[in-house]
Amino acid sequence: HMNGAGNLMDFLDEPFPDVSTYEDFHTIDWLREKSRDTDRHRKITSKSKESIWELIKSLLDAWSGWVVMLLIGLLSGTLAGVIDLAVDWMTDLKEGVCLSAFWYSHEQCCWTSNETTFDDRDKCPQWQKWAELMTGHAEGAGAYVLNYFLYILWALLFSFLAVSLVRVFAPYACGSGIPEIKTILSGFIIRGYLGKWTLLIKTVTLVLAVSSGLSLGKEGPLVHVACCCGNLFCSLFSKYSKNEGKRREVLSAAAAAGVSVAFGAPIGGVLFSLEEVSYYFPLKTLWRSFFAALVAAFTLRSINPFGNSRLVLFYVEYHTPWYMAELVPFILLGVFGGLWGTLFIRANIAWCRRRKTTQLGKYPVLEVIAVTGITAVLAYPNPYTRRSTSELISELFNDCGALESSQLCDYINNPNMSRPVDDIPDRPAGPGVYNALWQLALALIFKIVITIFTFGMKIPSGLFIPSMAVGAIAGRIVGIAVEQMAYHHHDWIIFKNWCRPGADCVTPGLYAMVGAAACLGGVTRMTVSLVVIMFELTGGLEYIVPLMAAAVTSKWVADAFGKEGIYESHIQLNGYPYLDVRDEFTHRTLATDVMRPRRNDPPLAVLTQDTTTVEDVETLIKDTDYNGFPVVVSRESERLIGFVQRRDLTLAIKNARQKQDGVVSSSVVYFTEDAPQLPASNPQPLKLRRILNLSPFTVTDHTPMETVVDIFRKLGLRQCLVTRNLNIIEHLWSVLEIQVRRRFPPPSSLKELEGILTEEWLQIPLETIHKLYESIPQRIEAVIAAKSRRTPYEIIFC
Amino acid sequence: HMNGAGNLMDFLDEPFPDVSTYEDFHTIDWLREKSRDTDRHRKITSKSKESIWELIKSLLDAWSGWVVMLLIGLLSGTLAGVIDLAVDWMTDLKEGVCLSAFWYSHEQCCWTSNETTFDDRDKCPQWQKWAELMTGHAEGAGAYVLNYFLYILWALLFSFLAVSLVRVFAPYACGSGIPEIKTILSGFIIRGYLGKWTLLIKTVTLVLAVSSGLSLGKEGPLVHVACCCGNLFCSLFSKYSKNEGKRREVLSAAAAAGVSVAFGAPIGGVLFSLEEVSYYFPLKTLWRSFFAALVAAFTLRSINPFGNSRLVLFYVEYHTPWYMAELVPFILLGVFGGLWGTLFIRANIAWCRRRKTTQLGKYPVLEVIAVTGITAVLAYPNPYTRRSTSELISELFNDCGALESSQLCDYINNPNMSRPVDDIPDRPAGPGVYNALWQLALALIFKIVITIFTFGMKIPSGLFIPSMAVGAIAGRIVGIAVEQMAYHHHDWIIFKNWCRPGADCVTPGLYAMVGAAACLGGVTRMTVSLVVIMFELTGGLEYIVPLMAAAVTSKWVADAFGKEGIYESHIQLNGYPYLDVRDEFTHRTLATDVMRPRRNDPPLAVLTQDTTTVEDVETLIKDTDYNGFPVVVSRESERLIGFVQRRDLTLAIKNARQKQDGVVSSSVVYFTEDAPQLPASNPQPLKLRRILNLSPFTVTDHTPMETVVDIFRKLGLRQCLVTRNLNIIEHLWSVLEIQVRRRFPPPSSLKELEGILTEEWLQIPLETIHKLYESIPQRIEAVIAAKSRRTPYEIIFC
Repeated sequence: HMNGAGNLMDFLDEPFPDVSTYEDFHTIDWLREKSRDTDRHRKITSKSKESIWELIKSLLDAWSGWVVMLLIGLLSGTLAGVIDLAVDWMTDLKEGVCLSAFWYSHEQCCWTSNETTFDDRDKCPQWQKWAELMTGHAEGAGAYVLNYFLYILWALLFSFLAVSLVRVFAPYACGSGIPEIKTILSGFIIRGYLGKWTLLIKTVTLVLAVSSGLSLGKEGPLVHVACCCGNLFCSLFSKYSKNEGKRREVLSAAAAAGVSVAFGAPIGGVLFSLEEVSYYFPLKTLWRSFFAALVAAFTLRSINPFGNSRLVLFYVEYHTPWYMAELVPFILLGVFGGLWGTLFIRANIAWCRRRKTTQLGKYPVLEVIAVTGITAVLAYPNPYTRRSTSELISELFNDCGALESSQLCDYINNPNMSRPVDDIPDRPAGPGVYNALWQLALALIFKIVITIFTFGMKIPSGLFIPSMAVGAIAGRIVGIAVEQMAYHHHDWIIFKNWCRPGADCVTPGLYAMVGAAACLGGVTRMTVSLVVIMFELTGGLEYIVPLMAAAVTSKWVADAFGKEGIYESHIQLNGYPYLDVRDEFTHRTLATDVMRPRRNDPPLAVLTQDTTTVEDVETLIKDTDYNGFPVVVSRESERLIGFVQRRDLTLAIKNARQKQDGVVSSSVVYFTEDAPQLPASNPQPLKLRRILNLSPFTVTDHTPMETVVDIFRKLGLRQCLVTRNLNIIEHLWSVLEIQVRRRFPPPSSLKELEGILTEEWLQIPLETIHKLYESIPQRIEAVIAAKSRRTPYEIIFC
Repeated sequence: HMNGAGNLMDFLDEPFPDVSTYEDFHTIDWLREKSRDTDRHRKITSKSKESIWELIKSLLDAWSGWVVMLLIGLLSGTLAGVIDLAVDWMTDLKEGVCLSAFWYSHEQCCWTSNETTFDDRDKCPQWQKWAELMTGHAEGAGAYVLNYFLYILWALLFSFLAVSLVRVFAPYACGSGIPEIKTILSGFIIRGYLGKWTLLIKTVTLVLAVSSGLSLGKEGPLVHVACCCGNLFCSLFSKYSKNEGKRREVLSAAAAAGVSVAFGAPIGGVLFSLEEVSYYFPLKTLWRSFFAALVAAFTLRSINPFGNSRLVLFYVEYHTPWYMAELVPFILLGVFGGLWGTLFIRANIAWCRRRKTTQLGKYPVLEVIAVTGITAVLAYPNPYTRRSTSELISELFNDCGALESSQLCDYINNPNMSRPVDDIPDRPAGPGVYNALWQLALALIFKIVITIFTFGMKIPSGLFIPSMAVGAIAGRIVGIAVEQMAYHHHDWIIFKNWCRPGADCVTPGLYAMVGAAACLGGVTRMTVSLVVIMFELTGGLEYIVPLMAAAVTSKWVADAFGKEGIYESHIQLNGYPYLDVRDEFTHRTLATDVMRPRRNDPPLAVLTQDTTTVEDVETLIKDTDYNGFPVVVSRESERLIGFVQRRDLTLAIKNARQKQDGVVSSSVVYFTEDAPQLPASNPQPLKLRRILNLSPFTVTDHTPMETVVDIFRKLGLRQCLVTRNLNIIEHLWSVLEIQVRRRFPPPSSLKELEGILTEEWLQIPLETIHKLYESIPQRIEAVIAAKSRRTPYEIIFC
């Protein structure tokens, strides 16, 4: 008598394969998956008391979750390390090569060099630019042009390889993957999206795409890569591979591991998974995600791709506190971030829609080549866009120490001042800084425009790094402006209190960081995870208030123009079924307003419990494309007995036709507990109670939609049946119809009906009629199905 | 046609007060609260388009959440600062007084002193012990005895004051408060538990209790204090004060702020609230909690009670990395933590049960006095127990720097070695260390025993600090042991690889920290939040792996002996209704097995839609104590129409009797849409459809209990109605009973029944009977009610 679907396996004499699985592009039923897992768990627990071997098996089963986490952490950490190393090398390959060992990046090549200053070390003799290697001349216009040309050539080669690999081997490897992962985690099946092939191709093409110098990052795709690892290791354990619900717990943890290696921020990664990606996140998953994220981060650190033993991507250390008055520019940066987020989302979505609907979408290779070409041509002349974006961000975040040789740190020194290593007072900007400001301004415009066209192309492309770059450039510009204002006008009232001459009062690097947080927040609408990731970068609570101020402002500004972040927008653009947990449902509708069929539509497609034949069922399956069918007592009363999934029904009939003797097209399908004893001449009946879910979720048609949506969200239903209390006249008339319909017109009021019923010849006493009133059944009326293919809670005719 | 309860206010001609609120010690209905808030929100949104004033009001409403968070942060930060300052001063008052200003603590008193070394500064002339002040002699047996005596006296005075205040003014102020807050957040009403009076008394008595030197901490009570602040500010905004669901969102955030100020760990606080305390934690709350936690932490820092500008309670900085081989002692500490957790929970629960059931519970003041006396007598002679527990933990966590004067850092110096400030190599332990080890061992035993008797007394008492102290002592002892082993036996294979002579390879302070985490984890079963809090103390990811290893081990060991942490155990002990989200429901039962009434019990107490009189209703309310009643079409058919809450019913009838003319005891109560036109002689009917919930939650009796429990947890239902498909014979017989019961015995089979029905004189054609078969109604069978008073999903007869 248990939930049919949940305990299916127990009651099957000969379980047929693939029962209780889902088809591609279908929505899973969380309740059913959970119930199946509970059954499995119960079985293992009861078996474990039987023998030592079973006990060991049950312990292995209990530990398999941790093993999967460990493996995910190790593999995604390793992959991230390999990607980092490869990107470093290939990015530098665009400019030159290391003579002592061609597989060294610029930094590794010059690491062992004897030069003492950073400046000289950069120009170590082992590292040669292409022009120098080919013509012997390192300087001059000819060498510049040659280097320029080769830079573009390499970029085009990398991007061509990337887009070709994606096109030919794994179309799912393109994009950031986060919208799709969000959809999958919300309970949707996209076969192959997290497959081995996607993992391999995404890893390779990610390296190529990032190295090509396009305005994209590796962070989002790393989440996808980690989720592929998670899916891969799921297949090792039947606990996870056979249960779509449990699999999603693993994937949530894998997403955390992905962010953890992307930024070196394990706590931030877990919160990102919790806040942004996951749908169902029980506390057990929280703990395991944290474990996976830590393992991944430490694996990455032991590979040590940045050569500095740092866990985090952008390690920063500031020496000056911030002052209250600085909140004004921070909040302004927040406003900028919000505006950028809005602009980016709108422009990018518009461009992607154009790509989908016009000819443009038919030439993805050409598009990538063109964008790469434009990017390379425009990026090379500007030193801030020529280098990789993460290096740029790193430099922008940096505080100007005494040993810094960057152009951004070219301040005019006061010769009378001793220079302690860390505490350098504010100084007037030198020509290098002004020069840098112009280049940064150009880089800002370039990044803003090109990123809009880059995100969404058919190559792996993350959004975190470009967004942060835009914010960091804007922030650094604002930071330098505030710093110079404070230096030159330290007698102004606003500066008087906190910025005395000779003091170090403004840190432009902090502005860059705040700007980056604001822009990232504007685009993705992350909140807590954003602040925590940034906190993990600096390692101090000191700067959380500026970051938080900017993040809050940016979110508010961006939300004022539209509630959806870039991921939700892309989910909508691609038409994935996703029921956002954060959306407030504000419409004042009832279940009756959204159910299908509506009141006046043709009636619901149902099966009867004991009158349908195999042929009828097959016809129904062929003629409709509903995912399941309610089973009712009879077509007239439509009292609900249970619900049967289309896939289970198809499989069961196919199986019975093959294996069960005597099951033919005219066999009657019984969903009742006992099939009646039929004469031998009748065809063998087919008993299918075992695939019937006896406790489908029902609501009455009076239930407010906000409650229904809440139920769908929280319980993860696949569909919900709507019952209705029949109209009393309608019902009585239908019961007695055969007797009286020829003699009377259909009654329009209860009075009239009663008149008909109490007519002498009908012989039904009033008392019985009154009893009949009360026996009006609730009939199954319609189905609301969640998360089918198009709209958030699309409704299927069933 | 909307959800009756949700949209109650709209349809009421004259809304009566207190409708849709809950009585004390009752469970709230989350779905209903949510639905009410959505309605309120809709109304404000639609009104805001009408005028500028309404628009401003709607903006204020939208911002009120942030305002509440800000206020909570400010007040709880301030209170925490005041408590810290007062505790500091009063703890020192037990030993002596500051002559220059009696309101200075020892540290503040000697801060301005001219002495140069730490040791001398501690003995500055402005600070005098009581014996010195009273007799003039600072040293000698007499002075020692006098100081000892006064120490005990002060302790007794403080604890007597604390327990008396709690007894007389606010009984709810005792204990840590976390079990009760967990229960309240899960949706239970305990009036006054978070009231102003409790806030005031808890703050005062917390200071007294901590100062008295009892083995208790202020962390748990600070969460309670912060929640009281949250509740206080809720009353400023009707959005929160009138909606129990929204109020709980604020309380969740307040709990985060409480932990944030307790440890100076805002992220850890939010995760603690998420993992340990909260029940319903939407993402919006996460972001707001984070804000409140940050504001609280920064308020506390600007008060700066520790005088060191540090945010965190125990700031530590280690200079040595840890080595793989050290994981062995770390895991052993984890095992110790788990065992301590189990021992503590079992012993403490046993003692508390004894207190509840025997005479002991009748003398709470005497008990507190006795325990304080014993604590003071035993604590004074040992310097590690005499000081406040947080100072002790702080010292145990500390790495021995060059300037450390503590006994624990009394190592034998190699005179040939230069001493850099930070990197001190391992050295042999001096007599001071051995002395300290003995004292620590005694302190460990003392703390273990006395904490068991302290937690649960009628004074505010937190558990974090004593647990951490036990772990820190054990950890430090292990740490020193490993360090000395490594120093003296650095040629052993295990030490060979990582510990060369003259190197600094073992940090005993780190062991103390790991031990503290393990013990805290064993007692509370916190996981992620524990590691994050510890991470925030050190500020580096470096030491997360040791902490995590210990925390995981401790949890596994403790879980092996029993799944419940101390808070869940106390919830159970006190019989609070709490449905643990983490409990796996493994029983294989159906709704039919747990519903009330059971199949053979007397039938469900129901109301009919149009035949009950006011008197009937009043009798039903008087005779039963169910929280609500299903409304059915008629007593015979029991087809469900809706559900009405007892409280609403009582209020509606009381209101109608007072205000509505003509409503008397014999008035019929109508739950139908339209009451019939009655003759003027009949008493005025009472229409109550407006308080009827038209879409109560129903499940069939076949639903597995795990699904039902899941629904209760996730949707926060107050009750769930169970419907059953009637037996066909039973039903037909009941419909036709009056006609035929005198002539025939009740039929036992369908065949027999059909025989009766087709008898000539009944005139009912077979076709009609077949139709009747199909009209068997689902009838309302029983109710499952969640979280009433005793067991997790206790069932009420309804």
